[in-house]
Amino acid sequence: MAAMSPPQLKIKLQIYCGDEIAMGPGKADLLDAIRREGSISGAARAMDMSYRRAWLLVDAMNRCWREPLVATAPGGAARGGGAKVTAVGERVLALYHDLQASCATAAGSEPWHALADALLDVPKASQKG
Amino acid sequence: MAAMSPPQLKIKLQIYCGDEIAMGPGKADLLDAIRREGSISGAARAMDMSYRRAWLLVDAMNRCWREPLVATAPGGAARGGGAKVTAVGERVLALYHDLQASCATAAGSEPWHALADALLDVPKASQKG
Repeated sequence: MAAMSPPQLKIKLQIYCGDEIAMGPGKADLLDAIRREGSISGAARAMDMSYRRAWLLVDAMNRCWREPLVATAPGGAARGGGAKVTAVGERVLALYHDLQASCATAAGSEPWHALADALLDVPKASQKG
Repeated sequence: MAAMSPPQLKIKLQIYCGDEIAMGPGKADLLDAIRREGSISGAARAMDMSYRRAWLLVDAMNRCWREPLVATAPGGAARGGGAKVTAVGERVLALYHDLQASCATAAGSEPWHALADALLDVPKASQKG
């Protein structure tokens, strides 16, 4: 009964630094939200994420790169202080989005069309041999 | 104390069909294992995965594509029957690997080098503002 929906390719880019993820889709979304909301707590609320989780993601980013990607005002976001994406953070975010675009372009290619057009079907509800 | 390790880019391609993942890194690895092991149970063992989980992944793949990617012998793998990757399964797997290669090539480009060379650092153990 599900509406027909075309097959969709999702590309997830994760930049690892040792065992830590220095940048990925979730962290990029969080940076975008901090830029919009002006604080970690506001960004967490907008993303329906706990403040603790948002803080841990920011902490990981700030440890993985040569310079912090997010700067917090004295007092900290928990007490109403603001947070902003640094110049380095803006650059990392822009390059990450460039990287996503390159991959998306590459993926709009021969193998994907062969997979999507010729082989993929809408899911059947169930199937017994 | 962690050894210096270069930053690493991981690219995860997921092909969605409706809400289901028709192909992704885990399912591709499972197909490779079924090809090697000749059964779902053997593949599950080799991947340190429960038989139930492997079976559910195979079931999802077989429902998402026009034709099944895995064919099981009568009796089923649970009772020692074998399983093999079908010709369609081989084709999907090859195209998926082609898609991964295209993305990896695209990612070995300008934005990635800028990120990896100029900005990324080895994680620091901790940092206090």
